[in-house]
Amino acid sequence: MKRPSGRVADQLRPIRITRNYTKHAEGSVLVEFGDTKVICTVSVENGVPRFLKGQGQGWLTAEYGMLPRATGDRNQREASRGKQGGRTLEIQRLIGRSLRAALDMSKLGDITLYVDCDVIQADGGTRTASITGAMVALVDALKIIKKRGGLKGGDPIKQMIAAVSVGMYQGVPVLDLDYPEDSAAETDLNVVMTSSGGFIEVQGTAEGAPFQPEELNAMLALAQKGMNEIFALQQAALAD
Amino acid sequence: MKRPSGRVADQLRPIRITRNYTKHAEGSVLVEFGDTKVICTVSVENGVPRFLKGQGQGWLTAEYGMLPRATGDRNQREASRGKQGGRTLEIQRLIGRSLRAALDMSKLGDITLYVDCDVIQADGGTRTASITGAMVALVDALKIIKKRGGLKGGDPIKQMIAAVSVGMYQGVPVLDLDYPEDSAAETDLNVVMTSSGGFIEVQGTAEGAPFQPEELNAMLALAQKGMNEIFALQQAALAD
Amino acid sequence: MKRPSGRVADQLRPIRITRNYTKHAEGSVLVEFGDTKVICTVSVENGVPRFLKGQGQGWLTAEYGMLPRATGDRNQREASRGKQGGRTLEIQRLIGRSLRAALDMSKLGDITLYVDCDVIQADGGTRTASITGAMVALVDALKIIKKRGGLKGGDPIKQMIAAVSVGMYQGVPVLDLDYPEDSAAETDLNVVMTSSGGFIEVQGTAEGAPFQPEELNAMLALAQKGMNEIFALQQAALAD
Amino acid sequence: MKRPSGRVADQLRPIRITRNYTKHAEGSVLVEFGDTKVICTVSVENGVPRFLKGQGQGWLTAEYGMLPRATGDRNQREASRGKQGGRTLEIQRLIGRSLRAALDMSKLGDITLYVDCDVIQADGGTRTASITGAMVALVDALKIIKKRGGLKGGDPIKQMIAAVSVGMYQGVPVLDLDYPEDSAAETDLNVVMTSSGGFIEVQGTAEGAPFQPEELNAMLALAQKGMNEIFALQQAALAD
Amino acid sequence: MKRPSGRVADQLRPIRITRNYTKHAEGSVLVEFGDTKVICTVSVENGVPRFLKGQGQGWLTAEYGMLPRATGDRNQREASRGKQGGRTLEIQRLIGRSLRAALDMSKLGDITLYVDCDVIQADGGTRTASITGAMVALVDALKIIKKRGGLKGGDPIKQMIAAVSVGMYQGVPVLDLDYPEDSAAETDLNVVMTSSGGFIEVQGTAEGAPFQPEELNAMLALAQKGMNEIFALQQAALAD
Amino acid sequence: MKRPSGRVADQLRPIRITRNYTKHAEGSVLVEFGDTKVICTVSVENGVPRFLKGQGQGWLTAEYGMLPRATGDRNQREASRGKQGGRTLEIQRLIGRSLRAALDMSKLGDITLYVDCDVIQADGGTRTASITGAMVALVDALKIIKKRGGLKGGDPIKQMIAAVSVGMYQGVPVLDLDYPEDSAAETDLNVVMTSSGGFIEVQGTAEGAPFQPEELNAMLALAQKGMNEIFALQQAALAD
Repeated sequence: MKRPSGRVADQLRPIRITRNYTKHAEGSVLVEFGDTKVICTVSVENGVPRFLKGQGQGWLTAEYGMLPRATGDRNQREASRGKQGGRTLEIQRLIGRSLRAALDMSKLGDITLYVDCDVIQADGGTRTASITGAMVALVDALKIIKKRGGLKGGDPIKQMIAAVSVGMYQGVPVLDLDYPEDSAAETDLNVVMTSSGGFIEVQGTAEGAPFQPEELNAMLALAQKGMNEIFALQQAALAD
Repeated sequence: MKRPSGRVADQLRPIRITRNYTKHAEGSVLVEFGDTKVICTVSVENGVPRFLKGQGQGWLTAEYGMLPRATGDRNQREASRGKQGGRTLEIQRLIGRSLRAALDMSKLGDITLYVDCDVIQADGGTRTASITGAMVALVDALKIIKKRGGLKGGDPIKQMIAAVSVGMYQGVPVLDLDYPEDSAAETDLNVVMTSSGGFIEVQGTAEGAPFQPEELNAMLALAQKGMNEIFALQQAALAD
Repeated sequence: MKRPSGRVADQLRPIRITRNYTKHAEGSVLVEFGDTKVICTVSVENGVPRFLKGQGQGWLTAEYGMLPRATGDRNQREASRGKQGGRTLEIQRLIGRSLRAALDMSKLGDITLYVDCDVIQADGGTRTASITGAMVALVDALKIIKKRGGLKGGDPIKQMIAAVSVGMYQGVPVLDLDYPEDSAAETDLNVVMTSSGGFIEVQGTAEGAPFQPEELNAMLALAQKGMNEIFALQQAALAD
Repeated sequence: MKRPSGRVADQLRPIRITRNYTKHAEGSVLVEFGDTKVICTVSVENGVPRFLKGQGQGWLTAEYGMLPRATGDRNQREASRGKQGGRTLEIQRLIGRSLRAALDMSKLGDITLYVDCDVIQADGGTRTASITGAMVALVDALKIIKKRGGLKGGDPIKQMIAAVSVGMYQGVPVLDLDYPEDSAAETDLNVVMTSSGGFIEVQGTAEGAPFQPEELNAMLALAQKGMNEIFALQQAALAD
Repeated sequence: MKRPSGRVADQLRPIRITRNYTKHAEGSVLVEFGDTKVICTVSVENGVPRFLKGQGQGWLTAEYGMLPRATGDRNQREASRGKQGGRTLEIQRLIGRSLRAALDMSKLGDITLYVDCDVIQADGGTRTASITGAMVALVDALKIIKKRGGLKGGDPIKQMIAAVSVGMYQGVPVLDLDYPEDSAAETDLNVVMTSSGGFIEVQGTAEGAPFQPEELNAMLALAQKGMNEIFALQQAALAD
Repeated sequence: MKRPSGRVADQLRPIRITRNYTKHAEGSVLVEFGDTKVICTVSVENGVPRFLKGQGQGWLTAEYGMLPRATGDRNQREASRGKQGGRTLEIQRLIGRSLRAALDMSKLGDITLYVDCDVIQADGGTRTASITGAMVALVDALKIIKKRGGLKGGDPIKQMIAAVSVGMYQGVPVLDLDYPEDSAAETDLNVVMTSSGGFIEVQGTAEGAPFQPEELNAMLALAQKGMNEIFALQQAALAD
């Protein structure tokens, strides 16, 4: 088995996390997993959605988009089509759930955090890159909110989270699939974890043949290995 | 730990699969997992979507809906809201992918199968009940298509598939969550499998605390145990 | 003239009204006019629409839907099309107006009743079956609301209402058209009445040749005959 | 009983039918029933809807709209709301069905007629005025189509049709309700007829108390009386 | 160069402004620039949009529409398409901005003025006719609001505004383009001015070759000449 | 008068044009006018819109978007709102018209060029930056199309175009407004020109007081001065 990129099976793509990428948002990160590039911003608004009113807690919601030509073929712009596709909604629900798992909502106060992940170039793994980058933007945004006098209840971050994809490619478990691998993989597994090794989300899909329990275990082990490196990269970015 | 329903941890709800439930569809099944009731129909139309034209294969697509008062509180009708919600799209994408994994598309010929799963009463596990029931409706629909002179290329069914949910409830892995469990579970894991024991989909979400690798393994084992019973129920229903 | 079903001209199809069909709704009825099957639920919500605020009266509104494969050919799901069709809106407006005629809104109090009529199998006459079944579900729902301590102003039901279709088929007035008759009838007339013999709605349409005043009278007489039987069936169902 | 307008019970409002009201359309009529003013145009396009392809017949379809301030209070513009309301769809379906009853579609050839009825001032009876005016515009449009070399199969007009509303107002049957009557009437009945006295549509709605069979008969007789006058006005307009 | 209409280069079409054209609106004008006919109404509602709440000022907003057969070929009705096109939105934004320039919002009080411009017949220049006619309807509406006891802060009209189009047609600057000129012009320039000679909007578009600074100046001079005549016509209409 | 940025009245912001900014598109440019940053891509698809079929010419169309947090306050994502706003449609129509003026469509052949301008950071002048950057991306895209064997009819570029904004700020004409100036300017004028000094579009709006003819002339002169510099920057970028 030879990976299209020449990487070995358990090798991540070069990952870069650039903070303060745009100037207006409370948190703004450009995250790159190889050629996959996503702008992750975190914005703060007062108030919470109606279903949370008066419950003494904040909220976080996420939206995801791709520039029409982020991909090899141009996709119709969702704003002009008049609706977001199922894939988009599925991904933004995943990002939102994952980042909410990082927070103690009762410490946020009466605010809503909007996470926007916009893919400017896609080469596989946009949802896992989005989660990984948005976590860093979230840390930055909370620092700013605190500086402005918010977050009186203490630090709302319970745990760092990040995400990576793994898959079965030509019968071998591989880490961090790029687009050529992703489109040919037998199985695609997205894993969201905490820095202490717990799972937040595990989403595996057999694209061709079913995957066996031992393959699942091998992929999960590979994911854990990659996550350790990614958490170190997040920390390094935040230490700058 | 005591389950709200009084079931033991590895006990399924009573499952009933009623074939030929409505009269027009090529396949029509009422599937009941306890109080969860879903009408699954399979319809046949000539032709395939544009992206498959001329490739000598058929297609299967799925749609999912809930009657507005299938649930404890009434939900706004999606047709009157003017769009399907993210949860609906996510579930119908899952149903479609899962059932496509049962078929050899090249043997379908130039037809599209429409799977409609409509929940008339919800009590947890509607997506897994939908997949399980729709698989039976699919078998029936293919028999009718063959009787009408279609499916010249042989039987398109590669494998039976079914689905079940498992979860961590009060620290214990439990099988086939009903609504009271689902809304209180720490982790919710939906598993789609083949009758020969492979995984088609594994979707686990930590609702509260992260889940640990050993919990994941315990839940997967429980799912496998339940799936064996469900596959037997599918076979029994088809043998009638 | 021979009716496709073998019925005589003034004969209704077998009508069945099953109460408490689903478990969550305040009122829930499965109504069957032969092979036409509709789930009718009545749900209660606090508050009234904006245009009624502060006027000391309640409201009732209705929605209608068909499962995509309730019919011989599959119809596109309205939720996925993004809008309800003209036929759907026309029918749900008719159901709402008809049921409002059964109620004294000033006795409802500050609540809104949502009537949902969902056709799970269609064989002609879905709108008249919906009205007939929903009336029974409405009676049940009001009993529950009263039991919960609502309806302090007395019983809001002014009169029972029900509906039936009649038509000119091969030159003869016939009662309760099924689909084969409906699609071939020269005239289709839907009649909503009160149990004391008044008209709430009369909607007649010439599909081919115009209908003459004496034909209209013959059809109306037939409708009145059928309505007497239907009101008896409603009472019997409510007496169970 | 005194009508708000001072008219006697069986008196129509002044009706004016102005042909060639706008210059582009094949048929263009301004129809006025008192203060109700509707522009009715008929446009011709080649081809027929998909469901009629290859059947050797033409089609007619209708659309209805109201300028936002055609009424006493401004209504939100449907184009800006993003959808047509149920009332609009119901009316345009009625107009389309009614005018199709005037035509032998097999003589139209492979064309579609678009009827647009746009209310510029509303004072009750907009749907019946629309049908009455559009019938005249239809005659004009067919003359133009014939002049251009179409309609080789002979005159497609089978019969003239027109419409009027009647109702029970303060216990008395009255003809051609204006807005003050319409909003206070116990019963509102719209009648579409042919010039030879047949019914095309009869749509009666009890707004308050149910209406009795003898009231229905009285209203229908009144409608027939009014229709005779309206057919004469149509003929006079066409004779100019 | 010969204009299709036979007009000389600096000649306006016959312009007619008919006040009180429909009866319900506070201001209602039919404006005709030759064969271009637009109904302009101004409606008043209490309250202001959310972004202006509590700022002690009123608001004016405009909407624009065309009857489907106002033009040579029928356009699809925007209400039935489910959205307003880009051209419509662009024009109604222009009308709104232009009329707001006529008003001192702080003198309006807590009301919103809705301007509706609906084209019943189009022959070029519908946006400039709309602005010109709506200004007159605005004056009338404000008189009514004052009569009803509003506008306590004094007259909100700061200046009269009106609009006209100019263009380069066959190399010559011409005033007030009709449709045959508009569709063939090299440059189309819409100008909105105040009666004291200032510019509110200048929107010029090269349809073919770029236009040169001296051509722009010639067109602007022509516009100013035409505007003087139009302001006089507005005054004459208001003096009736 | 002191500009917020400290620039002198006729001074542009630093402008940077980065070619090949993303890897998939035929043309891809990041254009920066100070803190305004826009990704402009040009994509090629076979075929032309229906209204151009069989006319032997190609087409170019443009779409414009802003990341939700490109601005100081977060804007709702248009894809999630379900429609593009009027401002967006107005801008993308302007971009499309402007770039079409650069091309001889008859030399494009049977292809459509999609121009996507996505603002990742906004600080005033996003539409003029978009046009300026997209022109460079268009040149690059055409080179690629030619290399692939297209454009047999010769170079379709007739002329380079670019755009800049000017305005009246505190009574003084200034070049290239940034956001603080734009939101306070009395007049805002966007100018699209050709490199040979002709106008393609001139769009001026009085935000407060009307602007006078001599102010318009002063602003246009300033625009011409700025355009010369911008055309030089385009050439330099293309020469790299």
